Amino acid sequence: MESNDKPRPATPLLDKVTSPAALRQLPDWRLRQLAAELRQDTISSVSRTGGHLGSTLGVIELTVAIHAVFNTPHDKLIWDVGHQAYAHKILTDRRSQMASLRKEGGLSGFTKRSESVYDPFGAAHSSTSISAGLGFAAARAHGAQDVGDVVCVIGDGAMSAGMAYEAINNAGALGHRIFVILNDNEMSISPSVGAITKHLATLCQNVPLVEIDTLLRRGTKLLPEPLRTGMQRTQRAVRELAGTNSLFEHLGFSYFGPVDGHDLEHLLPLLRALRDHATGPVLIHAVTRKGAGYPPAEASDDKHHGVGAFNLVTGAPAAKTEAAPAPTYTKVFGTALIEEAKRDPKVIGITAAMASGTGIAQFAKAFPERSYDVGIAEQHAVTFAAGLAAAGMKPFCAIYSTFLQRAYDQIVHDVALQDLPVRFAIDRAGLVGADGPTHAGAFDIAYLSNLPGFTVMAAADEAELVHMVATAAVHDSGPIAFRYPRGEGTGVALPQAGVPLEIGKGRIVREGRTIALLTLGSRLGEALQAAGQLEARGLSVTVADARFAKPLDKTLIEQLARTHDVLITAEEGAVGGFGSHVLQHLSDKGLLGSRLQVRCMSLPDVFIQHASPRAMYDVACLNAVHIAETALACLEGAQEQYQTPVNLVGAP
Amino acid sequence: MESNDKPRPATPLLDKVTSPAALRQLPDWRLRQLAAELRQDTISSVSRTGGHLGSTLGVIELTVAIHAVFNTPHDKLIWDVGHQAYAHKILTDRRSQMASLRKEGGLSGFTKRSESVYDPFGAAHSSTSISAGLGFAAARAHGAQDVGDVVCVIGDGAMSAGMAYEAINNAGALGHRIFVILNDNEMSISPSVGAITKHLATLCQNVPLVEIDTLLRRGTKLLPEPLRTGMQRTQRAVRELAGTNSLFEHLGFSYFGPVDGHDLEHLLPLLRALRDHATGPVLIHAVTRKGAGYPPAEASDDKHHGVGAFNLVTGAPAAKTEAAPAPTYTKVFGTALIEEAKRDPKVIGITAAMASGTGIAQFAKAFPERSYDVGIAEQHAVTFAAGLAAAGMKPFCAIYSTFLQRAYDQIVHDVALQDLPVRFAIDRAGLVGADGPTHAGAFDIAYLSNLPGFTVMAAADEAELVHMVATAAVHDSGPIAFRYPRGEGTGVALPQAGVPLEIGKGRIVREGRTIALLTLGSRLGEALQAAGQLEARGLSVTVADARFAKPLDKTLIEQLARTHDVLITAEEGAVGGFGSHVLQHLSDKGLLGSRLQVRCMSLPDVFIQHASPRAMYDVACLNAVHIAETALACLEGAQEQYQTPVNLVGAP
Repeated sequence: MESNDKPRPATPLLDKVTSPAALRQLPDWRLRQLAAELRQDTISSVSRTGGHLGSTLGVIELTVAIHAVFNTPHDKLIWDVGHQAYAHKILTDRRSQMASLRKEGGLSGFTKRSESVYDPFGAAHSSTSISAGLGFAAARAHGAQDVGDVVCVIGDGAMSAGMAYEAINNAGALGHRIFVILNDNEMSISPSVGAITKHLATLCQNVPLVEIDTLLRRGTKLLPEPLRTGMQRTQRAVRELAGTNSLFEHLGFSYFGPVDGHDLEHLLPLLRALRDHATGPVLIHAVTRKGAGYPPAEASDDKHHGVGAFNLVTGAPAAKTEAAPAPTYTKVFGTALIEEAKRDPKVIGITAAMASGTGIAQFAKAFPERSYDVGIAEQHAVTFAAGLAAAGMKPFCAIYSTFLQRAYDQIVHDVALQDLPVRFAIDRAGLVGADGPTHAGAFDIAYLSNLPGFTVMAAADEAELVHMVATAAVHDSGPIAFRYPRGEGTGVALPQAGVPLEIGKGRIVREGRTIALLTLGSRLGEALQAAGQLEARGLSVTVADARFAKPLDKTLIEQLARTHDVLITAEEGAVGGFGSHVLQHLSDKGLLGSRLQVRCMSLPDVFIQHASPRAMYDVACLNAVHIAETALACLEGAQEQYQTPVNLVGAP
Repeated sequence: MESNDKPRPATPLLDKVTSPAALRQLPDWRLRQLAAELRQDTISSVSRTGGHLGSTLGVIELTVAIHAVFNTPHDKLIWDVGHQAYAHKILTDRRSQMASLRKEGGLSGFTKRSESVYDPFGAAHSSTSISAGLGFAAARAHGAQDVGDVVCVIGDGAMSAGMAYEAINNAGALGHRIFVILNDNEMSISPSVGAITKHLATLCQNVPLVEIDTLLRRGTKLLPEPLRTGMQRTQRAVRELAGTNSLFEHLGFSYFGPVDGHDLEHLLPLLRALRDHATGPVLIHAVTRKGAGYPPAEASDDKHHGVGAFNLVTGAPAAKTEAAPAPTYTKVFGTALIEEAKRDPKVIGITAAMASGTGIAQFAKAFPERSYDVGIAEQHAVTFAAGLAAAGMKPFCAIYSTFLQRAYDQIVHDVALQDLPVRFAIDRAGLVGADGPTHAGAFDIAYLSNLPGFTVMAAADEAELVHMVATAAVHDSGPIAFRYPRGEGTGVALPQAGVPLEIGKGRIVREGRTIALLTLGSRLGEALQAAGQLEARGLSVTVADARFAKPLDKTLIEQLARTHDVLITAEEGAVGGFGSHVLQHLSDKGLLGSRLQVRCMSLPDVFIQHASPRAMYDVACLNAVHIAETALACLEGAQEQYQTPVNLVGAP
């Protein structure tokens, strides 16, 4: 830790630039110094807090150049994803809060409207910026106040997502003036994939990085009409043979680039020329290096995409990580999938640009030819999997809960309606900590469990996850999903091999008589703690793990309802999920009109801000103490309701 | 009707061609006759049943050519959307069933796996075919049995959807052999929009429709290596100057076209040459005419996209439609939105390629500059609307319930998380009739009502819809949605002007004492009928219209629960929606442990096959008789439970 206790780097110029307006007062030659200081300040800051370092370092000069040329916040600067906007935050009123980055009560790791007027549109999921920017541009055309120019910065990885294409297609047709800066660092989180990546590489290879005057000469659309007409035909041949007849031009954008995204002497005049002359949609292709200017980041495989606190000199993690108490769920999934793939040649692994995050990278090392990274393209990933399933394969689509939302219609229409056995491995289910509400996996239980024919499981611990992978591998009669949390497992012993679970059967973990706690997923541990607390008060408590949100274990649920005074369900998901299905079943059976008191504990009706997962679950009232309190309150309710003594003592 | 009673057209050749295998026995010169007979048979058939005529007529020759060249069903033919596949159905074992098209128990209006082995992947929503086809191609590479070549036919309109781009991007990178036939008729349902449409037009304009040998000469990627190397550089200059350096080539496809999609003399040799030589992904750009070969269709604005039964000679509807009892909800919405737009210059209308179907076409006539058709691009539509809202406008996103599923993540991440006042006009909510389960609006109540900050309304009738449009127009503090059914309203008088509703307040429509029926949306009429039936049996019935699924009218719900023996909710949506929120609230309040019997009537856990909406609601058990029966059964349950007499008589 010692190096982080050293004084911060000297940043005399940055210290004086307290706003983008102040930045715009500087002569160009000082902006280079500003960028250098901004880079050092960012590295120093993230070395203390951790965060997304590499992507921010790749856009330091872009950040300076955009604020220098455009009149933010009147001009709208929209960062796609927003995790590359740390330097932007430092320049826009949030420098003093950088120590709180991604901490409870502190700055978000992404752009956020509620944080600053310089964040006109928040982000975190990829590929939304052009759509949002086009909305601002259209509003400007309708006379909206306080909307000047619109600048969207989007990475090359984000260009694999269909929604970016939809936006470009629409923007190219509408013709509004809008600036899209393609930040091409040839990797999103994993290396970018897909034909668009090859196309961008071609654009970069076929011509050398060119001088600004050449770039401008190329931009015939921006030249005055007389000049233009004469030159056009000749120029066109030159340009197209040079390979710069880009996809973006086919879609109605004027294309400028590639330009060195770290060279202010190129960036500033280009952006100024375009600001002063452009009339329609413009794409500026800037080539950058993720992690630029910080050798440890540039040298690392993932370019320090997301890091913890680290040693400033070496780039090594700040403190030696203690031996992890348990492997992550992600790793357990990856390992289990490899085991299934060894047994069954039909098993396929699919990720949408989250190879490491989902464990598919691990799978790909074992089975390179049976793994697919389709890019940031969840819609395609799911229907591609549906095609594989229709042809008899066993595709496992490993996608974070929050990103699976992108493929909801494909799940309904291509998978569920056709009853195709696609397997969904849903990582990051529930609250996820520092990434906050944009990455919460809150809705999947609800949006999957009402789809006819679906099987929906949630793992109470990492051993359960192994069994659920095995269950999904053998379940070939329809779609099946299993969800599990972010981070480390509970430390239980892992089975030698996964054993398929009986579909739709839960398990009783401890037996009691008065209160029944029925959990779906990893609240099981909290429920067991709650049971201990309740038992200490003389109450007899059953704890059961539903395992399945669908099909419901109706026998178990009815049994618990009939033999207890209180039934509490708990899940790491929003209303509409497991608890709702339990209530619906109990009401259908007329089991709610008895002495039974039921409560469904789910995520509350708010977006919970980033903090540690435990702190977030405290806000959600889903930890052990809340479960125990709810059970006690119910018991009192049951007592009041019937004015009969409830059995307060009793062992199973 | 007289012309439809005339004998069917003579189709001597088609009568003999009872399978694609038989078709492949014919010499090429007879295929032209087969296509002509197939066209006449299709027109004759659809003139009796109604259906999607224009799109099928545009692909008659393509259908014949594909089955002639490829070895279906071993080779997989995947129709995008599938509503253009009537001729395909006639050729593939379903000719005798065409009279049942889109009727209860009959053939689907789309492709469907359960209908035929010739439909390897069903469809109905657009732009899924390339993803699914790539899944088959990948499965083939993994040794899947019974997968030969893969041919996907996709319209130019479907190319505006991001998921098609995602699939092309992935296919271009993977390099599997796959044939994508772009069926370019320059209109999807409405005329196609977006830059891609312009690009396709450019491809068509810059070169004349070319001869097959020219096409093949162009396809250098398919030529043997020695030939290729020498020619490539020269050819490239020629091709790119000619404008055929297409977007698809940038994305890794070999591009062939444009070719006349109605000329078998061009199609057959091209498809055969590609079948025999192609090694990677190939795009064939076929230019077709929607409605081709049937003058009344070609002359109509929408090319007979979707028609009822019609007179074969004139193309006019078969019987004069009786004066409609009421305007459609869609028309009522369009008119109401125009009225709001007159009052408020910030009102904007947005559709995703469903201008007529959503009423935005009507709005666009009144306010052309304030309406947007973004193409089949729901993801973009929603985030574009979010951008407009962030800039202070009042965007109304008018999207069918089933298609809004495509934009679920954008609703969560870009709208709800930022609490932006985007208005969602959700047409085709609930069961929709002949379009069947793929178009059912079953899930929106569930997937919207658990989003923090959302307001969710459902219109009980068309007058309510007018008020809800007004409510959405003035509600500027967060996202708001209102849903309404397909088809005609109930015939109630329409208000002169919409009056904003109080947010979160339902209304009691009739008062009683024993049974409470609480509906959300247009089941209100059925509930009132059920109340009449129950009253005839001496029961006192309250009927209330919740109006809001979110926020819940907790006061109303608690009042109904406290003062009745039975509470029934009914909604046109799946479990997880309104009823689930009511149950959750009642259980939170401890109101379920009383004498009260509650039942939540929602769509059942099956995909309901196409029939009339009323017949589908019979399957769903959501008509008046089912509501009355459920209430009676509950009342008996309540009686049994408490063994106390329930008040069977009583007027309010």
